[in-house]
Amino acid sequence: MNQLKLGLPKGSLENATIALFEKAGWLIKPAARNYFPKIDDPELACSICRPQEMSRYVESGMLDAGITGKDWTMENESDTVLVGDLIYSKVSRKPTRWVIAVAGDSDIKTLEDLEGKKVSTELVNVTKRFFAEKKINVDIEFSWGATEAKVVAGLVDAVVEVTETESTIRAHGLRIIHDLMESNTQFIANREAWQDPWKREKVENIFMLLQGALKADRIVGLKMNISEEKLEDIVDILPCLNAPTIAHLYNQKWYSVETVVSEDIVRDLIPQLKKKGAEGIIEYPLNKVI
Amino acid sequence: MNQLKLGLPKGSLENATIALFEKAGWLIKPAARNYFPKIDDPELACSICRPQEMSRYVESGMLDAGITGKDWTMENESDTVLVGDLIYSKVSRKPTRWVIAVAGDSDIKTLEDLEGKKVSTELVNVTKRFFAEKKINVDIEFSWGATEAKVVAGLVDAVVEVTETESTIRAHGLRIIHDLMESNTQFIANREAWQDPWKREKVENIFMLLQGALKADRIVGLKMNISEEKLEDIVDILPCLNAPTIAHLYNQKWYSVETVVSEDIVRDLIPQLKKKGAEGIIEYPLNKVI
Amino acid sequence: MNQLKLGLPKGSLENATIALFEKAGWLIKPAARNYFPKIDDPELACSICRPQEMSRYVESGMLDAGITGKDWTMENESDTVLVGDLIYSKVSRKPTRWVIAVAGDSDIKTLEDLEGKKVSTELVNVTKRFFAEKKINVDIEFSWGATEAKVVAGLVDAVVEVTETESTIRAHGLRIIHDLMESNTQFIANREAWQDPWKREKVENIFMLLQGALKADRIVGLKMNISEEKLEDIVDILPCLNAPTIAHLYNQKWYSVETVVSEDIVRDLIPQLKKKGAEGIIEYPLNKVI
Amino acid sequence: MNQLKLGLPKGSLENATIALFEKAGWLIKPAARNYFPKIDDPELACSICRPQEMSRYVESGMLDAGITGKDWTMENESDTVLVGDLIYSKVSRKPTRWVIAVAGDSDIKTLEDLEGKKVSTELVNVTKRFFAEKKINVDIEFSWGATEAKVVAGLVDAVVEVTETESTIRAHGLRIIHDLMESNTQFIANREAWQDPWKREKVENIFMLLQGALKADRIVGLKMNISEEKLEDIVDILPCLNAPTIAHLYNQKWYSVETVVSEDIVRDLIPQLKKKGAEGIIEYPLNKVI
Amino acid sequence: MNQLKLGLPKGSLENATIALFEKAGWLIKPAARNYFPKIDDPELACSICRPQEMSRYVESGMLDAGITGKDWTMENESDTVLVGDLIYSKVSRKPTRWVIAVAGDSDIKTLEDLEGKKVSTELVNVTKRFFAEKKINVDIEFSWGATEAKVVAGLVDAVVEVTETESTIRAHGLRIIHDLMESNTQFIANREAWQDPWKREKVENIFMLLQGALKADRIVGLKMNISEEKLEDIVDILPCLNAPTIAHLYNQKWYSVETVVSEDIVRDLIPQLKKKGAEGIIEYPLNKVI
Amino acid sequence: MNQLKLGLPKGSLENATIALFEKAGWLIKPAARNYFPKIDDPELACSICRPQEMSRYVESGMLDAGITGKDWTMENESDTVLVGDLIYSKVSRKPTRWVIAVAGDSDIKTLEDLEGKKVSTELVNVTKRFFAEKKINVDIEFSWGATEAKVVAGLVDAVVEVTETESTIRAHGLRIIHDLMESNTQFIANREAWQDPWKREKVENIFMLLQGALKADRIVGLKMNISEEKLEDIVDILPCLNAPTIAHLYNQKWYSVETVVSEDIVRDLIPQLKKKGAEGIIEYPLNKVI
Repeated sequence: MNQLKLGLPKGSLENATIALFEKAGWLIKPAARNYFPKIDDPELACSICRPQEMSRYVESGMLDAGITGKDWTMENESDTVLVGDLIYSKVSRKPTRWVIAVAGDSDIKTLEDLEGKKVSTELVNVTKRFFAEKKINVDIEFSWGATEAKVVAGLVDAVVEVTETESTIRAHGLRIIHDLMESNTQFIANREAWQDPWKREKVENIFMLLQGALKADRIVGLKMNISEEKLEDIVDILPCLNAPTIAHLYNQKWYSVETVVSEDIVRDLIPQLKKKGAEGIIEYPLNKVI
Repeated sequence: MNQLKLGLPKGSLENATIALFEKAGWLIKPAARNYFPKIDDPELACSICRPQEMSRYVESGMLDAGITGKDWTMENESDTVLVGDLIYSKVSRKPTRWVIAVAGDSDIKTLEDLEGKKVSTELVNVTKRFFAEKKINVDIEFSWGATEAKVVAGLVDAVVEVTETESTIRAHGLRIIHDLMESNTQFIANREAWQDPWKREKVENIFMLLQGALKADRIVGLKMNISEEKLEDIVDILPCLNAPTIAHLYNQKWYSVETVVSEDIVRDLIPQLKKKGAEGIIEYPLNKVI
Repeated sequence: MNQLKLGLPKGSLENATIALFEKAGWLIKPAARNYFPKIDDPELACSICRPQEMSRYVESGMLDAGITGKDWTMENESDTVLVGDLIYSKVSRKPTRWVIAVAGDSDIKTLEDLEGKKVSTELVNVTKRFFAEKKINVDIEFSWGATEAKVVAGLVDAVVEVTETESTIRAHGLRIIHDLMESNTQFIANREAWQDPWKREKVENIFMLLQGALKADRIVGLKMNISEEKLEDIVDILPCLNAPTIAHLYNQKWYSVETVVSEDIVRDLIPQLKKKGAEGIIEYPLNKVI
Repeated sequence: MNQLKLGLPKGSLENATIALFEKAGWLIKPAARNYFPKIDDPELACSICRPQEMSRYVESGMLDAGITGKDWTMENESDTVLVGDLIYSKVSRKPTRWVIAVAGDSDIKTLEDLEGKKVSTELVNVTKRFFAEKKINVDIEFSWGATEAKVVAGLVDAVVEVTETESTIRAHGLRIIHDLMESNTQFIANREAWQDPWKREKVENIFMLLQGALKADRIVGLKMNISEEKLEDIVDILPCLNAPTIAHLYNQKWYSVETVVSEDIVRDLIPQLKKKGAEGIIEYPLNKVI
Repeated sequence: MNQLKLGLPKGSLENATIALFEKAGWLIKPAARNYFPKIDDPELACSICRPQEMSRYVESGMLDAGITGKDWTMENESDTVLVGDLIYSKVSRKPTRWVIAVAGDSDIKTLEDLEGKKVSTELVNVTKRFFAEKKINVDIEFSWGATEAKVVAGLVDAVVEVTETESTIRAHGLRIIHDLMESNTQFIANREAWQDPWKREKVENIFMLLQGALKADRIVGLKMNISEEKLEDIVDILPCLNAPTIAHLYNQKWYSVETVVSEDIVRDLIPQLKKKGAEGIIEYPLNKVI
Repeated sequence: MNQLKLGLPKGSLENATIALFEKAGWLIKPAARNYFPKIDDPELACSICRPQEMSRYVESGMLDAGITGKDWTMENESDTVLVGDLIYSKVSRKPTRWVIAVAGDSDIKTLEDLEGKKVSTELVNVTKRFFAEKKINVDIEFSWGATEAKVVAGLVDAVVEVTETESTIRAHGLRIIHDLMESNTQFIANREAWQDPWKREKVENIFMLLQGALKADRIVGLKMNISEEKLEDIVDILPCLNAPTIAHLYNQKWYSVETVVSEDIVRDLIPQLKKKGAEGIIEYPLNKVI
């Protein structure tokens, strides 16, 4: 039987990824001791890997495909296929950024001021390439974590660190002087596996359902009854995410209208629908929108 | 831009209120340090207030509208507009009551027996007005909490305390001698804001969606297929919360019937529908019923 | 008023049972101190009982019906009516088994080797009947728990213990030499109550809704729009759990098709539907499938 | 090498027993999976056993000695040697009692009223012997736990249950009609092991150090300086737990006096010592008092 | 029998107070339901009271003595006897202060700027007296808590709030413009009880032992052996908290020297003692230093 | 004022180190946001650093001294002064080892079998030097954690990982083929700081008190009274950790004997002392033994 070797990210994305797969249709049960979580699909063999190491194993073919951050694929300079982006819904709704930060009261204002300074980061290679391109000579050392604190402690002059809301950066009193890159979660595949039609279709189907589940996260179903004379008027104000489904009601000059809309706008839409004469409005949750 | 200043209740209702707004279509993110939670609607500015103080701030116009208990609005004798009641679903389904309670073995049996006695309560003004009306002379003192215990400790003769299930009252061995008042959650507005058409419509729309979400809490969607000859018979027993949506099925003498019913009765309705010949019955959850 | 006395299982099944009743349409509120949980149906009076004792009380008529394990009904040799099995969804999806296990390095290989040995178990009667039938003379003693450990400690020669994944058995280094019986959760009723038409119908209705809720656990609703020329082709690949509901869309040569499918296959079905031309596919959750 | 097989009680006494052994000089490290905790003394092999089963295993020689409750030794009618009582310090300082309790509003007032009634208990044998002696005919059934609740539920007429503070009894609204027996923790030994001089000495030494550690739990060291003329006067009021240690101070007409006293009285003793002229009083904690 | 009615503070000081009494020689067992903790001294009857209410009950004689904050005694203007201060050891070692704070960007800089402004506080009376004395006209309202947030929310102009490290003040972005008063924990007594010789002695003895336990918290015992020729030299550098106890060792020209020293200095003292020739230095913990 | 910059290890040793300093005489209060914990000694400035990075900062003089593992100092090839070893008391009492491990069923049996294989480790430099010396060609890659799992997942052939009890190694089913090195906690200093007399003495005094506190961890004080004729006999069996302190008791032919002994042997010693006639034996805890 064909089987796809799939890498799932360990750490902060682990639970969100398992929840996303469940919504997409796969039950993953974490296995405590070894690192092969069980999945209820014999065509898949899962491994849990550090995001930092994922692209290495996808590149070498140990894994056929994997979910990881764009940042770590770049750090490893891995040659892999990008299947697509997976934008997990977050409260902050801000992108993940790698930034260069210095102490709030530092004299360092520009990239050029970093000439000859010491910089600590977990993203050593990307940082080295960045400064080499700019022809700025910087002493870059690998950080084992708690990177921001080293600026506060005076141990280094600057850090290159990942941030979403800047809250940790600000809590340490640091000042951002440059944005190095943005990153997000990605679905990547091995070059050779991508040439195999069975594997490629399996990867594309998984990606379609993961996308469908992500899309459904803040989208709801809306259903209402509308009389014939108001039908056109009301359908006009429905947002065109998908065309609405309209059915003639039995023995009546009324229609059932059903559509999907973003949860963000439903609170403005419902009062308008009501005002224009829609009746029996109900809203219901969705699992997937393809 | 127009903006409505909205007060949300701190304490036992806080999480339930945030969950209700989410269901109604607004994401509120509590802010740890200060008391201004973030909301994803630029037309709203939220504040978290103690229910005890809410009506004061709505009355004075510091807030345009707020959610609080009827008891505290009365305690404060605030002049505000009652937009409507918000009956949060509770397992106990019993009203919130303010009661007068004495020690289980006390000689005090009637209100008159309280003449000259000491009473401790957090609801001082309502209590004072109550006894003044009855022309009973009682020494009423403000309580900082743990009110029931003071009777047990012999420090006071009676308490006026809030209760839903009487469990705390009984756990202290107290006996209720009178019900002072019932209370529930209310949506109130400032008199002046109510005159402003934009603010009034915003308040009414929020209230409509909160009510729609509360209503959906124990209401479900029901869908089934019914043959032509049984259609009338079955539709007759459907409760008339909203009129059912009936559509002719393609190429068949069958109809799809869809309706919303209270979850309380669905357990009685489904066996009847089945007995009368409905097929393919499914029940699905709702977010809002308008 | 008629009232059915219903026993709910204390312990590992307690929360799952309360959740199942909620999905089926009854709110149960556990009562901390005494053992009578509140339920929002005046026709039901609930008691929380140990599964081990349930069948005794159902047999004697203290309870009209109850939910317990088949194993304990057999242990008690209770004469009750089996209303039906309730297979709670589990991740392991393996049956509950009572097995005979010995130390990993024991000389005991067959049932006959247990002649004259000491066996510890919580299921004394079933075990005694089993060995009596086999005409093997075994010294069976009641265990207060932690049964497996007694083999490890050398206190007994074998145990009869319940297991689902064998993980505890294996963690103690035991070896299974025989499967005594399989068990699962059951809905049982008192013989006399079963003769009472009102009680019997109440029991059957509860069972129907519990089954409907269990069935809905891994089943979802699927809805899509299909053009006339592709309709037959697509409907052919829909699984026939229930016949799909097909309705003609207003003013178009398109149809709305709606069906319920197992969540297990939806991940394979959706890519096929898409490929064959289905549009606006949405998937939504269900509460019950009858 | 000689080795003593020692049983430690599982459950409510487990942590207290491990802490007591640590104070007495042995480090016990609980072993998660199997029931053989590690101990840093090669002459001891420990097992964790249910108190209910301990005396059975000590009687049979599976264990040489064990710590358990007097109640369970009596329930099992085990023939063992009583090494001594171990009165663990408790805040309640009340003995553990087995009592007969009925519903608060029951007609049952005396033991005789139990004639023909149903009684549930975990202590079946002791209870049977008790009623047999009294020549009262009672239907006694084994309880799997939550015994008090059965009276509340009307399932039985009375219970025999263990209690220290009566709080659970009272929380269920039960009324005690008789005290069956008192119990406490005991150190027991196997009859044969007691004849073995090495084992007997080992058991006696362990018991001496456990007693020394228990004794030290509420005993403290007290040290002070006293001038020659007040020496006799002060020494007279020191309690005579051990004789005080008196040493002449260098080059002075003063003495250093050191003694051990119960922590219970130290709060009364110190003010007296101070009043009579003791100086530099310090109190320090003890690990053992032999 | 004589009995002293003693009030213990509920809330943040509760556990620290119980721990302090245990060190002083009294075991207090909190009682969950009612508010009378058990204490192992028949001459004492304890009540747990809010610190805010304590002085009221001590003043009225409901309690003979109590532990509370100086701030609340002043707020209540209670006429009680101050037995003494109890400075609980804290990591911050900063006094508790009541401060007047305004928004960080407020125009209010001085007390006079508060003329006509609104101030929220839990310490209404003290605040009123303060401003009355200063002849500044301020609108002071009682706060139900979360006082700082009201300034942030713009609901009031200033707050009078308690703080130790200023961390909450600063977290809200407030600025302190004045220190109203400092406070600390105090042992207070009823005026009449203080006239009763038995009660007064009981109160004084409790206070002596509480103080002794507080003093021992950061004081340790130190013991060493010193040869005759170095004795004087070493004794000279010992701090004179209590005079050291010196005893001649048996059959040797050596002395045993024992003393108590602050834990703060022991880290500097031990290296010096070692350098000067002290041998066998040991340090041991203390329970009380009188 | 002179000040010593001291690095404390972040992570698994952090709490143990803070507890050890408290016993030694310094209160360290962790600071949440920045990495400068407060310490109650103005002569010390603490920083919390990763053990992996500590020796780099001590070598460069950013820190004067630090506590870290011998393994990481070697990994960094840092040139620092070894002040001494700090053997923290552990239940396992086994050394920390870095081992080479392969899958349980791997063909790799000897170091030579690793020729051309892939090895994952966090200790890249030590591992590279090790294999270079052995002239074995191995592909060594840096591991971001969860190293053992990579062998199980088949991603690498071997790992170099740290272990104390081998439990994680065994839980993954790995087999150890070689011990690379042992490690333990060490106190290290900067070469230049070591030349500064003030800094060197400060470092040495801290180390003396840390060692004194570690030593006291399993050592206790023992005190007893002995009559003249038994004195010599008993003193002979006292272990000679420090010479016992013997003092003549007032007015008696008795002596007070006091000594410190290892807690491990006290359980054997006390029964002997008792048998030989020692009286009033007490054991008390110690803070430091110098």
